[in-house]
Amino acid sequence: MEKLLGIEIPIIQAPMAGVQDWELAAAVAEAGGLGSIPCGMLSPGQIQAEIEAFKAHSNKPYNLNFFCHTMPVIDKNKLAAWEQTLSPYYREFGLSPPSGSDLLRRPFDATVADIIEPYAPPVISFHFGLPAPELLQRVKSWGALVLSSATTVEEGIWLEENGADIVVAQGYEAGGHRGMFLTDDLASQIGVFPLVSQLAEVLSTPLVASGGISSRKDIDAMVRLGAAGVQVGTSYLLCREAKTSAVHRQALRDQRAETAITNLFSGRPARGIRNRLMEDLGDVYDAAPDFPYASLALAPLRQRAESQSSSDFSPLWSGQNRSGCREISATELTKVLWQGI
Amino acid sequence: MEKLLGIEIPIIQAPMAGVQDWELAAAVAEAGGLGSIPCGMLSPGQIQAEIEAFKAHSNKPYNLNFFCHTMPVIDKNKLAAWEQTLSPYYREFGLSPPSGSDLLRRPFDATVADIIEPYAPPVISFHFGLPAPELLQRVKSWGALVLSSATTVEEGIWLEENGADIVVAQGYEAGGHRGMFLTDDLASQIGVFPLVSQLAEVLSTPLVASGGISSRKDIDAMVRLGAAGVQVGTSYLLCREAKTSAVHRQALRDQRAETAITNLFSGRPARGIRNRLMEDLGDVYDAAPDFPYASLALAPLRQRAESQSSSDFSPLWSGQNRSGCREISATELTKVLWQGI
Repeated sequence: MEKLLGIEIPIIQAPMAGVQDWELAAAVAEAGGLGSIPCGMLSPGQIQAEIEAFKAHSNKPYNLNFFCHTMPVIDKNKLAAWEQTLSPYYREFGLSPPSGSDLLRRPFDATVADIIEPYAPPVISFHFGLPAPELLQRVKSWGALVLSSATTVEEGIWLEENGADIVVAQGYEAGGHRGMFLTDDLASQIGVFPLVSQLAEVLSTPLVASGGISSRKDIDAMVRLGAAGVQVGTSYLLCREAKTSAVHRQALRDQRAETAITNLFSGRPARGIRNRLMEDLGDVYDAAPDFPYASLALAPLRQRAESQSSSDFSPLWSGQNRSGCREISATELTKVLWQGI
Repeated sequence: MEKLLGIEIPIIQAPMAGVQDWELAAAVAEAGGLGSIPCGMLSPGQIQAEIEAFKAHSNKPYNLNFFCHTMPVIDKNKLAAWEQTLSPYYREFGLSPPSGSDLLRRPFDATVADIIEPYAPPVISFHFGLPAPELLQRVKSWGALVLSSATTVEEGIWLEENGADIVVAQGYEAGGHRGMFLTDDLASQIGVFPLVSQLAEVLSTPLVASGGISSRKDIDAMVRLGAAGVQVGTSYLLCREAKTSAVHRQALRDQRAETAITNLFSGRPARGIRNRLMEDLGDVYDAAPDFPYASLALAPLRQRAESQSSSDFSPLWSGQNRSGCREISATELTKVLWQGI
């Protein structure tokens, strides 16, 4: 896998939209791993700026990460009901629901492809499946290696059959959004151990283990199980180069805080540390607007609460294992991970 | 660990109350693993009969498994509300709620200790923590090795500090009842991979990995992670010597059927394949009677449904990974597991 990706050690830094940019990616690349730049919440111009910044600081390969969901038709009744559900909080802070927002997660499309094509990015990873065949073909025609995440055995087989060059096996333990795309039943989401073990039996595509991995021992065990490498996210969240917010960092430092899978912050299931919103409404709220629209109405509450050092309305993405978090540079952390010190 | 337990290979057959007896245990022992006899649903006389039967067929060590929960005071209002919730089903089958039942799960106590003491059982495992100190001391005074399950890092540390000789790390993937005893928050339940990895760092007690393990490759990976051995349950459920019911076997054969953690069948969280009751009431039903009383009102429904080849009201315990299930003898299965063929 290292040869395929042009890296020195089989560690991919997980793309984490909203909490990191090129700087974390470059720091990981410096240590020989694959740095990832999350592009799913960026405008075309911002994506360009990220690539330029990375390349100005590193000549190593990098991974651009995109979502490839289908944007749903806006259900105005659902949005209105959602604002109604949140209205006690608006009253509490003296706020009004927002009229719009640019902070939406948008899927990979031809416009974005136009922007990144001149850079011929070496690696592109997708979340929520793969883009439409002609768009995928276009990406591959640049020579980009394509990664995507599987959360079930079925999804892994689908990704291999539909053109992924490397499959990331995302275990139930992983933080942030579940990559699930063939099912929306949370009961289908299995642990990283049985997921990697089973996928290694049926796929010929190289496999990357993701979810709960925080040490060299973990990496070695995953390789023994059949993985070609690992993807690590949570452990990097306290690194100097991460843009993790103060309230998010505070939550991550509490090793005992429980995580749960919730759809409250975006409309899609994602794992984060429990906070007030999850306690109040329940982790999974059936009437939440479809992804990515649930986030709109929360934006002003989150902003106001964070300005008061409160994490009550913030997505506190985290995997189940925070034992690898360290407040050092991501270059150091990558070395620690690999050298087992 | 093999030396401690007097066995030849580091595989413990998971005790599975209601679906197996001495026969499965003896078959596993025959292949050099540790066979377990679940005693939590048996009367003292039945326990005696099980031990006698095992010893008549095998001179290998065996494990007696007990629950050690505290029996709650019966909440008659809760039981009445539960019967009310189930009343549409009673009507559907023309049944009445039962007046009582002997099928209750009872905790380990002095009476049971009196019964088993003459056999000086070599290994005793507990679920839901450990019995009271003087009772535990009594068990240890016979020379029995004591095992118990941890579902979190905190529970593992507690078990080591309170006298467990071996800690079974029960990952989220495992079938049947969660051994959780220091928490009732399902969000605390983590995957077997991060659980074993973290416990191996903090415990000096030998560690057994449990949940999602179904192949020699899995065993080797768990040993690499720091486990001294593994406990395997689900893979044995289709074995000839298991007493798994016909409807349960049918459900297990469907590799795609989803499992979920539910409290409907006993009052405590346990993982099983989704069926009608879980679909109707939701996997976790807050108003279910406390463990073990929820099972009482279900007994007639389950019996009637099973007589019609329906699994609608049966607990279909299963872990997340059924890829190791084989309809062969448990002696063969144990050899396949260990020799990796």
